[in-house]
Amino acid sequence: MISVGVVGGTGYTGVELLRLLAQHPEVQLELVTSRSEAGRRIDDLFPNLRGQVDLEFSAPDPERLGACDLVFFATPNGVAMGMAAQLLERGARIIDLAADFRLRDAELWQRWYGMEHAAPALLETAVYGLPEINREAIAGARLVANPGCYPTAVQLGFLPLLQAGCIEPSTLIADCKSGVSGAGRKASVATLLAEASESFKAYAVPGHRHLPEIRQGLEGVNGGPVGLTFVPHLTPMIRGIHATLYARLKDDGADLQRLFEQAYRDEPFVDVLAAGSHPETRSVKGSNYCRIAVHRPPEGDTVVVLSVIDNLVKGAAGQAVQNMNLMFGLEEHGGLQAIALMP
Amino acid sequence: MISVGVVGGTGYTGVELLRLLAQHPEVQLELVTSRSEAGRRIDDLFPNLRGQVDLEFSAPDPERLGACDLVFFATPNGVAMGMAAQLLERGARIIDLAADFRLRDAELWQRWYGMEHAAPALLETAVYGLPEINREAIAGARLVANPGCYPTAVQLGFLPLLQAGCIEPSTLIADCKSGVSGAGRKASVATLLAEASESFKAYAVPGHRHLPEIRQGLEGVNGGPVGLTFVPHLTPMIRGIHATLYARLKDDGADLQRLFEQAYRDEPFVDVLAAGSHPETRSVKGSNYCRIAVHRPPEGDTVVVLSVIDNLVKGAAGQAVQNMNLMFGLEEHGGLQAIALMP
Amino acid sequence: MISVGVVGGTGYTGVELLRLLAQHPEVQLELVTSRSEAGRRIDDLFPNLRGQVDLEFSAPDPERLGACDLVFFATPNGVAMGMAAQLLERGARIIDLAADFRLRDAELWQRWYGMEHAAPALLETAVYGLPEINREAIAGARLVANPGCYPTAVQLGFLPLLQAGCIEPSTLIADCKSGVSGAGRKASVATLLAEASESFKAYAVPGHRHLPEIRQGLEGVNGGPVGLTFVPHLTPMIRGIHATLYARLKDDGADLQRLFEQAYRDEPFVDVLAAGSHPETRSVKGSNYCRIAVHRPPEGDTVVVLSVIDNLVKGAAGQAVQNMNLMFGLEEHGGLQAIALMP
Amino acid sequence: MISVGVVGGTGYTGVELLRLLAQHPEVQLELVTSRSEAGRRIDDLFPNLRGQVDLEFSAPDPERLGACDLVFFATPNGVAMGMAAQLLERGARIIDLAADFRLRDAELWQRWYGMEHAAPALLETAVYGLPEINREAIAGARLVANPGCYPTAVQLGFLPLLQAGCIEPSTLIADCKSGVSGAGRKASVATLLAEASESFKAYAVPGHRHLPEIRQGLEGVNGGPVGLTFVPHLTPMIRGIHATLYARLKDDGADLQRLFEQAYRDEPFVDVLAAGSHPETRSVKGSNYCRIAVHRPPEGDTVVVLSVIDNLVKGAAGQAVQNMNLMFGLEEHGGLQAIALMP
Repeated sequence: MISVGVVGGTGYTGVELLRLLAQHPEVQLELVTSRSEAGRRIDDLFPNLRGQVDLEFSAPDPERLGACDLVFFATPNGVAMGMAAQLLERGARIIDLAADFRLRDAELWQRWYGMEHAAPALLETAVYGLPEINREAIAGARLVANPGCYPTAVQLGFLPLLQAGCIEPSTLIADCKSGVSGAGRKASVATLLAEASESFKAYAVPGHRHLPEIRQGLEGVNGGPVGLTFVPHLTPMIRGIHATLYARLKDDGADLQRLFEQAYRDEPFVDVLAAGSHPETRSVKGSNYCRIAVHRPPEGDTVVVLSVIDNLVKGAAGQAVQNMNLMFGLEEHGGLQAIALMP
Repeated sequence: MISVGVVGGTGYTGVELLRLLAQHPEVQLELVTSRSEAGRRIDDLFPNLRGQVDLEFSAPDPERLGACDLVFFATPNGVAMGMAAQLLERGARIIDLAADFRLRDAELWQRWYGMEHAAPALLETAVYGLPEINREAIAGARLVANPGCYPTAVQLGFLPLLQAGCIEPSTLIADCKSGVSGAGRKASVATLLAEASESFKAYAVPGHRHLPEIRQGLEGVNGGPVGLTFVPHLTPMIRGIHATLYARLKDDGADLQRLFEQAYRDEPFVDVLAAGSHPETRSVKGSNYCRIAVHRPPEGDTVVVLSVIDNLVKGAAGQAVQNMNLMFGLEEHGGLQAIALMP
Repeated sequence: MISVGVVGGTGYTGVELLRLLAQHPEVQLELVTSRSEAGRRIDDLFPNLRGQVDLEFSAPDPERLGACDLVFFATPNGVAMGMAAQLLERGARIIDLAADFRLRDAELWQRWYGMEHAAPALLETAVYGLPEINREAIAGARLVANPGCYPTAVQLGFLPLLQAGCIEPSTLIADCKSGVSGAGRKASVATLLAEASESFKAYAVPGHRHLPEIRQGLEGVNGGPVGLTFVPHLTPMIRGIHATLYARLKDDGADLQRLFEQAYRDEPFVDVLAAGSHPETRSVKGSNYCRIAVHRPPEGDTVVVLSVIDNLVKGAAGQAVQNMNLMFGLEEHGGLQAIALMP
Repeated sequence: MISVGVVGGTGYTGVELLRLLAQHPEVQLELVTSRSEAGRRIDDLFPNLRGQVDLEFSAPDPERLGACDLVFFATPNGVAMGMAAQLLERGARIIDLAADFRLRDAELWQRWYGMEHAAPALLETAVYGLPEINREAIAGARLVANPGCYPTAVQLGFLPLLQAGCIEPSTLIADCKSGVSGAGRKASVATLLAEASESFKAYAVPGHRHLPEIRQGLEGVNGGPVGLTFVPHLTPMIRGIHATLYARLKDDGADLQRLFEQAYRDEPFVDVLAAGSHPETRSVKGSNYCRIAVHRPPEGDTVVVLSVIDNLVKGAAGQAVQNMNLMFGLEEHGGLQAIALMP
């Protein structure tokens, strides 16, 4: 059994992480911290956990956290970087579900996140937790930066094409649609049901924080610069990301279907659909899968990739558990076998 | 391992049953039949089952079905009563998720369901599968009539009050609200998203088929007639039933909170919330719980009970699996421990 | 042309009022005040008003407001009672869409609203703005208390029955369902799309502020006390209230359909549906109608009334405009002829 | 007053057209035909029209239709082309809301619509009813082909860029999202609330019928071929289209904001938002506006245009009324001044 602590379990990635950990056969959940909710039963805030999680939120305590085998940070950006060093010193390993350790370049991070990085030295040792690229490094990591939701869906869609070198890397477009849970569990007018349902809109077209993260990942695979236009949209649903990806093909003859099937043949959580398919986000609701289809419209030289995930599972808490499984030598799909809820 | 067949797995209770059976540690899913989809892969119709259910739909075959330990009918009303006898003869046990065996009175059934009952003799041996009332009888049953969704939520809400004799049994009102999946997976205009979302309405006020089922159950508990007004409503969501129940109290001094807590103390799937609570349907989404709160508004002598279930789980497929567990001596919560998805 | 001011136009009743006033042929919209948004263009906050309302929010100015023929308060409870006297003195008439003047008893108001009433003397002169009861008094009023949303739907449903004396007034139950816009346009977790969609729940069962308002109205009609159980529910949609009303019939022979048709024969905004109908909330979305159906289930002596309104129109801004029309001798349906949006 | 007939008013464009015509001050609605619903009151099918449209559906009668000044076809594809000639001969003018006369090339039409064109000779005289391009021709037309919903949103977004010659016409991408009402009011499983809500998916990536229509329109403006990738998506809401458009800029220095503002300066129904804006579909819900924003992300040479319409108004019935106004010399915004419903 792995002893696990969670820092900041009051948001949507937090409650989703607790749902997954509570059902994981190899996990002993030791403590869940929250400054604002300390002393309150967890299942009072999240009644779906009644009968499953018999703990109260507690104030963050480096001592107790450091004594865990693993600490998850399900906190706002900027929290993990302030606590990571002391927990690592105490022997705990860390998975940060926020953005603190996702960019390797501290200066770039500061530009996009608007605060100074508190632990730039750790950026070098942090491993970007996308198992489909970094499986081995994750297994040996002490500190894992869990990828963002959009970056997961987009990178998994572009990877086979970039690896095969069959698209012009300067022509990438990622038109992404996210459910509203991506905006987090915090009081706000913009994501009220009365504002966000029965409506659809783009946001952050001039620049979104996931852009440099996606670009860093794609450039790593490409071995050189990529040109990427990234437009996120708010969709009137709770969960799910749909990435529609476009790029110009270099090579007319490539068998794209086969390329994707080969690339993900051994991946437990990437499911390449049959040629001609259109994945629905609900087909992964509550599950850790990324389902992908690749299309080549009859005219022109543009490839279209459709990639769907549940933003809270493969896009956050599920991927974090997948990383935990890799870090501790467990079965990669341990605790992650829930089937998507349909309808 | 129990060998299981499913007749008619193409509807919402069907796919939900497959989701639960695929994850049940003691179940071997042998065949899933459908006349209309015979030959099609199940996971082609329901992509959430990709990688989980490696079967095609097959034409119904009494031979193969009869050889199973247990056959579930997830069919329209009127199918199970035509096939039950021959399967029982071959040694299979049966759980019918439709209404064929829910009413003990064949004539009453015919009046409400508009067709002659094909197996009235079986009505006597059929056991009504509400474990909170009939646990022992279910354990020994060969043929279980799985309750309707509304009847489950309503009966569990009224039972403690009727058992304790503290309400006037002639004054019962059940104002019930159901998600749209209750209307089934069939082409229809009335439940299109463009018709049924952003709207709310009552239906079947002059009479709904679940009325005689609820009344039969409540009268059994009451040991005499009950007067019940039942108004179902269509709610713009996929899953969930919320029953708001009203009755006139006889006895002013009863401790209703304690009454409910006592009544359901040992029930694995009925969760009585703290006094003053208001259960949300999402707190049971995808799970087999019924969560209940009891209120006594300050003025007047009316008790208000709030009872929520997932209509496809505790209101259908989950309760069916719970009944299976009882029939075969398995742990009652086997395969039913999924935590509700929140958000 | 009537010169109109609006105090506090930044909420949902505010923007709905502006939508209606902008299209009213007899209204000159002079100013819209908001402390928090002063200086901002109204159509910047509410882009649906682009090209229709060419004003900025301004700070509240009693001078300018008092010079208007009519001032609407679309403010939180407690604001209008502080400003009403000075505006009335300056000659303006007032319609308050909040609750300040709805209860005639200042003490009762204080108990339910948790603050002292700042203008108890005005309570006597204020007219409760339900045209179907108070049409004449409204026409002569200087200060109108616009009814709450639930109270409108519930009172219109019970009135014919109480007026005819054919129900037991001690047995009233109002099971009401509201869209989320009823909770207002303010940052909050509970009404986020990710919290409130795909879920249904009751709230405030121990006591809701609309209870004394409804009771006061019904007792006025009944000429004596009524016993009322009122349970509001939050429904996953933006607009709409559905009231399902129950009462015990005294008189077995009454022709309820005819009773309702007679009662509302001359009402421009109450539409009694044919016998056996089930009104949908979407049939009044964006319109000022209340649509009603009355049912008598075959067994028992309970009458069931179904009453739907758009909570922001007949339940708030539309009824306020209807009251304005009455106060200024305009056609009662002026500016209120928009047809509900379907689908 | 213009005497108007509507053929096929039982779908969503039909009921929306009736809503607009019922409120149009210059329209006398003479008859609404439907084979399947003949004899039924229109407001029985569409209760939002109670009190507004006092007609029954009638069987299609060329005599009565031909006697109208104008006949709208709100029918499935393939109906108008069979009746148009005889109505035109009788003197009626025609606006077809279906696709029969949208493509100038009968062979191309046959390829995409899978049936032979019944009136190829009329294709030459038909005018494509996008007022922003064809205003004068529409004014003189006898037969107007009302544009598709996607084609309206996409063409209005690309036009200024193509007219100015500042994008590479071979690099166009239109990533479009539509509410479910675009799929029409017909019994179907795929657009049930339980299937289509809480989910998002692309469809028809290999080819959608609106592709040749969009290309024809854009090539007309461009004066030469364009390369277009068009991916439509189904969005969990009733109304609204959001087109996210991408193209490679030729010219680095162009002032795109000014370009759009100039292009649509005099258009009554195209609203160019301030630089940096993100239009929401709800800002046009129920109204005839197209709202547009143009963005140039900081890196790269890709322009991003965001264009939103209500698919049933500017994308169908509203644009048809706008065309009627032009054809009959009425004010272009007559009957089209409803303000979008927010929230």
